[in-house]
Formats: sequence, C-alpha cells, structure tokens
Amino acid sequence: MARGLGRVFSGLKRLVTLSVMWSMKHPIYSVSSRTPPVRSMALLPLPCSKIQDFSLPNSTWNSEMLQLYKHYNSLCEVETEGGEKEGQWKKIPGYNRLLKYATGGVYLSKIIQSKARLFTRNINEPGAGFEYVLFVNREEQKCVGIWQCGHLLEGPPGHVHGGAIATMIDTVTGCVASLTGAVMTANLNINYRSPIQLGTTVVIETVVEKIEGRKKFILCKVTSPDGTKLHTDATALFLSIDINKLLLGR
Amino acid sequence: MARGLGRVFSGLKRLVTLSVMWSMKHPIYSVSSRTPPVRSMALLPLPCSKIQDFSLPNSTWNSEMLQLYKHYNSLCEVETEGGEKEGQWKKIPGYNRLLKYATGGVYLSKIIQSKARLFTRNINEPGAGFEYVLFVNREEQKCVGIWQCGHLLEGPPGHVHGGAIATMIDTVTGCVASLTGAVMTANLNINYRSPIQLGTTVVIETVVEKIEGRKKFILCKVTSPDGTKLHTDATALFLSIDINKLLLGR
Repeated sequence: MARGLGRVFSGLKRLVTLSVMWSMKHPIYSVSSRTPPVRSMALLPLPCSKIQDFSLPNSTWNSEMLQLYKHYNSLCEVETEGGEKEGQWKKIPGYNRLLKYATGGVYLSKIIQSKARLFTRNINEPGAGFEYVLFVNREEQKCVGIWQCGHLLEGPPGHVHGGAIATMIDTVTGCVASLTGAVMTANLNINYRSPIQLGTTVVIETVVEKIEGRKKFILCKVTSPDGTKLHTDATALFLSIDINKLLLGR
Repeated sequence: MARGLGRVFSGLKRLVTLSVMWSMKHPIYSVSSRTPPVRSMALLPLPCSKIQDFSLPNSTWNSEMLQLYKHYNSLCEVETEGGEKEGQWKKIPGYNRLLKYATGGVYLSKIIQSKARLFTRNINEPGAGFEYVLFVNREEQKCVGIWQCGHLLEGPPGHVHGGAIATMIDTVTGCVASLTGAVMTANLNINYRSPIQLGTTVVIETVVEKIEGRKKFILCKVTSPDGTKLHTDATALFLSIDINKLLLGR
C-alpha cells in the first residue's frame, strides 16, 4: 500500500486477516463428500463482525457460478496441519463500500457518514444486479472475476449494457492493479466481440502485463464459463496514487 | 432505423411523437418570467399515457442540472404559430427500458414479460443513481448528455466509479450513433483525466466523426458544466445491426 494509504487506513489496524473455513455443505447445492473445505480470506474486525461479505454464494447463484466458485476456492491458500500454507489464490471479500469500515481522517469520516455505496453493490435484491466474486494470485499477478449478470443490467434488449461490461472489467483489472498499492483508472480500451445475455455467467481473467514507474498495464478477457466464447477483451492502464490526495480533492 | 427494426417495432406504430409543452413554473426552482416554455419531444402512446419519462427535472436535480436542462430545452424544436419549426435540438425521453412499451414478435414479448430494466435506470430512488437527460441534434450529428452522479455510483472513496463513467459514455455515444439506425458497441477507448466527485454534474458531448459502411466512429468528452475541466475523453466505435438477430441470439 502507498505510504499515504497507511495513514488513512489507521483504523484498519483493528482488522485482521482470517482464514475462513466455510462448509460446502450448503443447502442450495449438493457437493460430493470428496470436496475439500472451501478456503477463503476475509478482512474481519474483532471481536465479532456484522460486516457482510457479498461475495459468498446465495440462492440466486446459478450452477456455473457455484462451479467456478468451488473451483477457485479449491485453489485458495489454506494452512495445513503442519502449519505450512498451500494454494496460491485468495478470495477477495466483497463489501458494499471500499472504506466503509475503516476510520481515520476527517475527510474519510465525512465519506463514511454519507450514504455512498460501491457502484457494483448498489442493488439490494440478490441476483438482480451484479453477483460476483474475485480471486487473486499475487505471485502470478493475476485476478479472476466470476460474474453473474442480473436482469437490472440491461442495455440492448435482453443483453448486458456495454457500460455494465465496462464496470466489470474496471473492477477486475483494478483489483489486480491494486495488488501492490492504491491505483486509479487512467485508460480502458474495450473491444466488444459478442453480446452477453442477461442472466449469463462470465469469467473475467486479468494479468499485469508490465509496470513502468507509476503505470500499471493490465490485460483482460471476458469469456463464457468454459472459456470457449470470447465476449470481450480489453487493456487497462492504472496509475498509482496517494489516496490522501484523492480524499482531499487535489 | 434498420429494416429489421421496423418489423420488431411494429407495435410502435401506435405511438406518436408529441411536442410536450412543460411549464417551467415548477416549485423546485425559480425561473424568470422571460424564460420560454420548455420544449421537448416524447414518445407517448394514445389515448393516454402511464409511461414515465425519467429525463424530466425532479426535486433531486441540482442547480447546474436544471440550468443545463433549461439551456438545451431552449434550443429544442418547437412549432411556431405559423406552423414552421424552429430549433435544431430534440430532447430524448428517458424510459427505464428501451423496448418496454413496444409490441410485436415472440422474442420481444418474452423480454417484455421479464423484469429487466435499463442499467442506467435501475435505481428507483431519485437522485441516488444516474440522473440524466439526452438532447440530440440530427443535422450536426451530435448528442449531449447532462448527468448528475448520485451517491450509489461510488468507485474510489467519494468519487464516481470508472465503470459508471464508462456507462455514461456508452449511453451518450450510443445515442448519437443510433440516430440513423440500431447499433451495438464494438469499442470504447476511454481516457480518465480527472476524477468526478459524487454528486457532481457533468456534460457529455458526442459527435459522429465518420461513417464507414456499418462502422460509426464517435468522439466524446466529459467536462464540468462550464466546460473548463476535462474529466474524461473517449472514442467509440459502433456497428449497425439487425436487432432481430440480437433478439434471436444469433
């Protein structure tokens, strides 16, 4: 994280990163007895939490979402009995604000007091807007997003709005770009190859192509769950920022 | 409109284009007595309408939105007493689905029966999401969008999400590209120059740069209301489509 970010996020000192063992014996879908426990990482405050992680399965997730979620969860970091860590991927918890639960700084406090919500989490009805979960692989500088596009995301009749697709791309490319510090989008160049029907699940794969000073160049593709259909490809450029300056409006 | 679109939109034959005279003596803001009547165009069914045009002022619009709305309305086409038409601009009515009130075609009917909503109109609370109005100038092949960015569009703390900005750009460039027929987005190339604070009003100006066969190239810039601050610039490429094929999923 950028140095400035550390000051702003002083409240985050109270937060700890926990490995959350989440039973796959969930009523909404059946899992074979050989399925390993789901492994994910979540930022949770102590001693107890009322923070909702929206990136966990709910009853609106279709079978493709659940399959992909299960697959990447199986690749996630988990501590073995011997104390060693296995798995290169980590699940990113999905809150409805980036900084809602951090404290520190008059500017941040003002924002917290507002009613602002993350654009991708501003629909309360499960399944109606974006349903998604992000996984990152820090070593390989990759991020994968699994998205289910609800009926409130329409652009062309029956299909997902170009802006909604751009929103998903900005989110996943931004996630991988921010692995080494706070960033802001500088450029998105998006090729729309094949329309996405409402209700569809897509996989968004991103990787850091190169880093030049403050510039982080990201590659991105949006495909069908089995990877056979390319819906969209994109490049993204992000700039490292001092988030204090953003909050101060400089 | 494309030939195929004519068939799909057969139900639109029942719709007529009306000039709507809307009194500016609205309680939410004061207007000088010299203000001309607001002139706008709306697609309304006969004999009476329950269709809501969301692109009309409401109590959440700030003074900059209202000023800009008033300005472009003053440039809109209006029929004089002598029967002549003056003004080159037209207001585009803002519904919460593109085809909600059209009939015809089994595929279209299926879509109408669904709960789908236009991505830019999927928040019911006025002022919380996108508030916007579009004006087109067919002769100059231009479209202007006036947008107020609500608190549910957050990306970076206190600022509008890059995907929400892309959504606004896709909408306004798509509007100007569709002046001569149905289109789909093929490319968006967006440069984010200066972040947009939540609650801010921005003006999005677009123009058709050139047309090559099915390809329509659009230029776009997003500025502050007075035009002095460039938030974003973009190019867009749209392809003319037969909307029947889209509805059939081809």
